[in-house]
Amino acid sequence: MIFIGHKNPDTDAVCAAIGAASLWDGKAARAGEFNKETEFIFNYFKIPIPEIITDFKGEAVGLVDHNEKSQYPEGLETGKLKKVVDHHLINLTTSEPIEIIMRPWGSTSTVIANEFVLAKKAIPEDAAKAMLAGILSDTLALQGPTTTEKDKEMVMILLPLTGIKDYKTFAKEMFMAKSNLGNLSAKEILNLDYKVFELGGKKIGFGVAETVAPEQLLARKIELLEAMGVQKNTEKLDGLFFAIVDVLASHSDLLVLSDAEKMIAEKAFGAMAKDNLLDIEKRVSRKKEMIPAISEAIGK
Amino acid sequence: MIFIGHKNPDTDAVCAAIGAASLWDGKAARAGEFNKETEFIFNYFKIPIPEIITDFKGEAVGLVDHNEKSQYPEGLETGKLKKVVDHHLINLTTSEPIEIIMRPWGSTSTVIANEFVLAKKAIPEDAAKAMLAGILSDTLALQGPTTTEKDKEMVMILLPLTGIKDYKTFAKEMFMAKSNLGNLSAKEILNLDYKVFELGGKKIGFGVAETVAPEQLLARKIELLEAMGVQKNTEKLDGLFFAIVDVLASHSDLLVLSDAEKMIAEKAFGAMAKDNLLDIEKRVSRKKEMIPAISEAIGK
Repeated sequence: MIFIGHKNPDTDAVCAAIGAASLWDGKAARAGEFNKETEFIFNYFKIPIPEIITDFKGEAVGLVDHNEKSQYPEGLETGKLKKVVDHHLINLTTSEPIEIIMRPWGSTSTVIANEFVLAKKAIPEDAAKAMLAGILSDTLALQGPTTTEKDKEMVMILLPLTGIKDYKTFAKEMFMAKSNLGNLSAKEILNLDYKVFELGGKKIGFGVAETVAPEQLLARKIELLEAMGVQKNTEKLDGLFFAIVDVLASHSDLLVLSDAEKMIAEKAFGAMAKDNLLDIEKRVSRKKEMIPAISEAIGK
Repeated sequence: MIFIGHKNPDTDAVCAAIGAASLWDGKAARAGEFNKETEFIFNYFKIPIPEIITDFKGEAVGLVDHNEKSQYPEGLETGKLKKVVDHHLINLTTSEPIEIIMRPWGSTSTVIANEFVLAKKAIPEDAAKAMLAGILSDTLALQGPTTTEKDKEMVMILLPLTGIKDYKTFAKEMFMAKSNLGNLSAKEILNLDYKVFELGGKKIGFGVAETVAPEQLLARKIELLEAMGVQKNTEKLDGLFFAIVDVLASHSDLLVLSDAEKMIAEKAFGAMAKDNLLDIEKRVSRKKEMIPAISEAIGK
């Protein structure tokens, strides 16, 4: 079975695939280029990077870290799915029963580490390293609002297997690596952690940049808005948002492209946008804080 | 948390709720009247029967044995769901992450018994009795086509906890009890194990009677077709089927109401209907053999 995460993979999508492949004896893959944070982790740990797969003919597929069709790797059909392991809301229809393991925890790596524990299986070193990175990335080093007790528990279990002494320092290095976006184009930045959602019948694109240097991105606002405009047209979206998340200050600003996004976002977050920018304060989780608010605003 | 199965509950829907409530410290409920088989089991084991609940205000809900909105208990909204444990295909959208445990095994009771094992929790006697009955009912005493190795394994684990020596004899008594439909109206028989499905944009009702005395039901064909006609109108269905499953002979006949159903069923099963009756031979599982064929025929 091929285990693979979503389009525009973030660290958890790549690392959860490694954990799942290790636990269930499959092959880890990814759906596209990794980001700077993921690159740092693979260099640091010197573990093999899963290859990009876009041809799933004849292979059973286990999805990790997503389940919505709009986020599937290129070339993947729902009929291929035999397993889904995820921690997001579910939006999935299959034509026959498959195995699904969904838990409302901070990362998919947490869900898979917990399955290792339930199965009483020893966790191989490379899988432990990958899953530790996945948890720290998705939970902002156990400080973000999606963090659960289970995430903390799994970090404590994985840490001794990885050779890392201080996970906070390691996570800070991860976030620094991700924040170094100087050599990327606005389009690349927009797509680093970008997903499309179906919300109340509307097709909404939503990119997020988690950074320790938000000022770098805010300085490129015009460029980013241009890239957003192009992408909105190309993908025939009803709306496109981009959140700049300051992971150290736990604070976010939202780029709102046009009046359409402005109306939705102001309703969603109860604040006024100025110069295409909306201060959404302490909201740092797309999954838990941003998308639900947008979804509710569209529903109204 | 309230654990509850689908509308028109069958034995597994009621019994899986008991298992789940026992494992996760919740309250077992059911969505409607139990059938003759379930009644037999509760009389035999002398265990408390879950009450019918239709008011879910303020309560978190764990769904067992279904996940599709069309099968929810009266009064239940998707927003209430915190947990889903099931073995059917998935057709579910939530607005936030919840816990989902889906396995492609023969019964939901199997899935929950396996969760007891994973959690290393002792299985209380009443829960063991309920889950044994749930597995035997849904797998036709481990003889039906949906039976997996995991179902057999769980029966072997549960059996010593229940006081039952010979599960085959016990299952035969269960099936005999279910087959005694003499005092039920045609409408009641149609609704004993009845579900509505969304297939290729069409709303299809599908009732099943598993019996050791199919001749009883075949003799009431006209009555049953009349009840089907009324129900099709009332529920504004695009099609309505009723399968009479001979559990001992592993053979089924399908009642096809009108030309609309005839066209679909003949395409689905590659046979000709005569006098509103289609012999679908060894197909005895709605989930695995009947609905997929109907779904494919509609899709064509």
